[in-house]
Amino acid sequence: MSSATDTAAPASRLPGLGESLPYFSQTGCIYLDWNATTPVFPEVAEAMRPYLTAFGNPSSAHAYGRPCNEAVDLARRQVAAMVGAEPGEVHFTSCGTEADAWAIWGAVMAARKRHGNGVLPHVVSSCIEHPAVVETLASLAAQGLLTHTAVPVNEEGLVSPADVAAAIRPETVLVTVMHSNNEVGSVQPIAELAALARERGVLMHSDAAQSLGKVAVDVKELGVDMLTIVGHKFGAPKGVAALYIRQGVQIERLLCGGGQEFGRRAGTESVLLLVGLGTAAAIVSRELPATAAHMAALRDSLQEQLLAGLPAGTARVNGPAEPAARLPNTLSIGIAGIQASTLLAELSDRLAASAGAACHSNGGAVSAVLRAMGVPTQPALGTLRLSVGRHTTQADVDAAAQMILDYVKRHQGQQGAAGGQQHQQNGAAT
Amino acid sequence: MSSATDTAAPASRLPGLGESLPYFSQTGCIYLDWNATTPVFPEVAEAMRPYLTAFGNPSSAHAYGRPCNEAVDLARRQVAAMVGAEPGEVHFTSCGTEADAWAIWGAVMAARKRHGNGVLPHVVSSCIEHPAVVETLASLAAQGLLTHTAVPVNEEGLVSPADVAAAIRPETVLVTVMHSNNEVGSVQPIAELAALARERGVLMHSDAAQSLGKVAVDVKELGVDMLTIVGHKFGAPKGVAALYIRQGVQIERLLCGGGQEFGRRAGTESVLLLVGLGTAAAIVSRELPATAAHMAALRDSLQEQLLAGLPAGTARVNGPAEPAARLPNTLSIGIAGIQASTLLAELSDRLAASAGAACHSNGGAVSAVLRAMGVPTQPALGTLRLSVGRHTTQADVDAAAQMILDYVKRHQGQQGAAGGQQHQQNGAAT
Repeated sequence: MSSATDTAAPASRLPGLGESLPYFSQTGCIYLDWNATTPVFPEVAEAMRPYLTAFGNPSSAHAYGRPCNEAVDLARRQVAAMVGAEPGEVHFTSCGTEADAWAIWGAVMAARKRHGNGVLPHVVSSCIEHPAVVETLASLAAQGLLTHTAVPVNEEGLVSPADVAAAIRPETVLVTVMHSNNEVGSVQPIAELAALARERGVLMHSDAAQSLGKVAVDVKELGVDMLTIVGHKFGAPKGVAALYIRQGVQIERLLCGGGQEFGRRAGTESVLLLVGLGTAAAIVSRELPATAAHMAALRDSLQEQLLAGLPAGTARVNGPAEPAARLPNTLSIGIAGIQASTLLAELSDRLAASAGAACHSNGGAVSAVLRAMGVPTQPALGTLRLSVGRHTTQADVDAAAQMILDYVKRHQGQQGAAGGQQHQQNGAAT
Repeated sequence: MSSATDTAAPASRLPGLGESLPYFSQTGCIYLDWNATTPVFPEVAEAMRPYLTAFGNPSSAHAYGRPCNEAVDLARRQVAAMVGAEPGEVHFTSCGTEADAWAIWGAVMAARKRHGNGVLPHVVSSCIEHPAVVETLASLAAQGLLTHTAVPVNEEGLVSPADVAAAIRPETVLVTVMHSNNEVGSVQPIAELAALARERGVLMHSDAAQSLGKVAVDVKELGVDMLTIVGHKFGAPKGVAALYIRQGVQIERLLCGGGQEFGRRAGTESVLLLVGLGTAAAIVSRELPATAAHMAALRDSLQEQLLAGLPAGTARVNGPAEPAARLPNTLSIGIAGIQASTLLAELSDRLAASAGAACHSNGGAVSAVLRAMGVPTQPALGTLRLSVGRHTTQADVDAAAQMILDYVKRHQGQQGAAGGQQHQQNGAAT
């Protein structure tokens, strides 16, 4: 926005792919929790900065509204380009949870409108979906507005298309399966699922929150009808997301009122955040192969260092063995004889990582994802989720591996002996 | 957040109440559209700036998550203090539309859960509600999930408590009436409505989007069960809002998933925006009487200049005559013989104001609010909504009055003669 100036904008070169961030060293804590949330990428923060001053309601036709409207349009084109969509297919929302809720509500209520109250719409999901999907389905089922079936996953965290096909009934209106899993990084066969959903006349939605910026996601290649896109997982700020809705797909509105988002999602646009989302999307479009290679190299190095340093037979890597079926940035590793939550609490000022998924740490003992994969309680409680990103360095993963190995060396013997108590001691699955 | 630094933060004194903003003069356009959206207040932008760098998922227990969690807590306390609530009663949402939708959906679905599908919940609203309320009610009614009654307003845009009382039925579960109207500034008798709702065992919700920062809003004095709070109407950025839910009031969740917002509204918190919302709320708490007086003085001056300059009998001020029943910052004035949308289009680079409400300009001819108040088509089409705010100056309103009077002088004669065409020429009711 040329008329917006911010004298405070720094002129120095910004850290790019593979370079650490100043905030990381200020904090003095290694950040391996990129699946929980990412830093706002430096270029994204710079693009947003003028919009702390520049303002206007994009719906206003005057000198304040018009440039904001243009900024929203640009963001929409940038997000569309990232996933191979048309701009008119991108609908901004406030978070992935809202996008997921909208996809489910929208498909179910559209079917209800078509068929009346007589036929209860049915939804197929996997049993390792994000709580945004799991809880939305449960809530609408409790209200008598839908029924649903959760298909199992195998021990690698993968859904079988045959299981999904078998779960589809005449009254099924939607299949919703996440593109990749937040905890173990399994990448689902979405194109196959979408093809069989389409064959049966059923809408296909996929929550791609964890995939964007890590693996290629093209809506046309996938053939999905709806896709959830979450900004804060690929360098945009928290509080902004999008739902791709394929041209021609009719779903009901979740948020009604103003005419924003082509009349499909009401609410004044957060221009500041949308500029951030668009800029982050442009970085993904430009850098994805390099970023994915960078992530994979660091993740593999971390995995190798841990496996080499841990006593034989005490570690277990969760997720698909096939590299193409696993997010390049995610390492879910179960370590016998320790509790992940205790390790993370002790190291919390020096190492940021997760035991479960940070955005829904509710104090449960064993993660539902690991349980669904058949991981026994003991290794599950010792499971760390380590996730790297654009600004992670080799020094970060070297230091993190050393910290974890040192901790295990100090604790593995004693906690192994006190195995019976581990379940009770385990606090929040953060 | 002490550990977050941003070397770009300017040290110079920030413009405060009654002082213009640099961005206003850069744009060269007088901003009298504060009811559409406000600028991000300078103190708010400064408080947000470090969070372009500082990040973390507030649900994470490590060094990145904890300070974000504290920032969210502080924002909650600041918003609570602004409206006389307890922090545990404040639930952050992404926008006023979401808060309104949640209040309605939540009350209706909670009743449905209690009573089963046999009793259709009934909602009472006014006929001048924001589209977020109007359309949500219509959408849920179309799905057969509720019925509703919209009570009329008088020619001043005020709801009568007797009408609301008469509309309540045994199956009524919710009364939702806006605290003040966005177009004409009528302030509703919410305390009276809440008292009679409570007497009948009905929940009371009020959308206070337009009231905060302009008039005193205290949830305990009002006695409401739910209140919508919208940040970008009082100096916070767009994309953040809150729903006050009185302690003990049980409503269903609209967005389900993670445990955020006391398990009542899922979705990773937008720390950046919440810091802005909290800071803006603190400014309201500190400055409200002075801000309201500043607004009233400028609004009254604008009104006097326009009424004095317009030919006798050609202007009409909409809204309550009683000053206490009218927002101090809002002037809705109908000018005979002109079209507001044409005036605004011609002046759009020099004067920012509205004909309808900017957040839902859909090209309709006459505003539903003016129609409900019985304003005839002719003055309605010539109605400008001029709204002032914290950084409006006397020079702004003097210049705006002159611009409008000059325009009217140039156009009133000819357009008065071409009255028959005015309806067709009228574009978006922005």
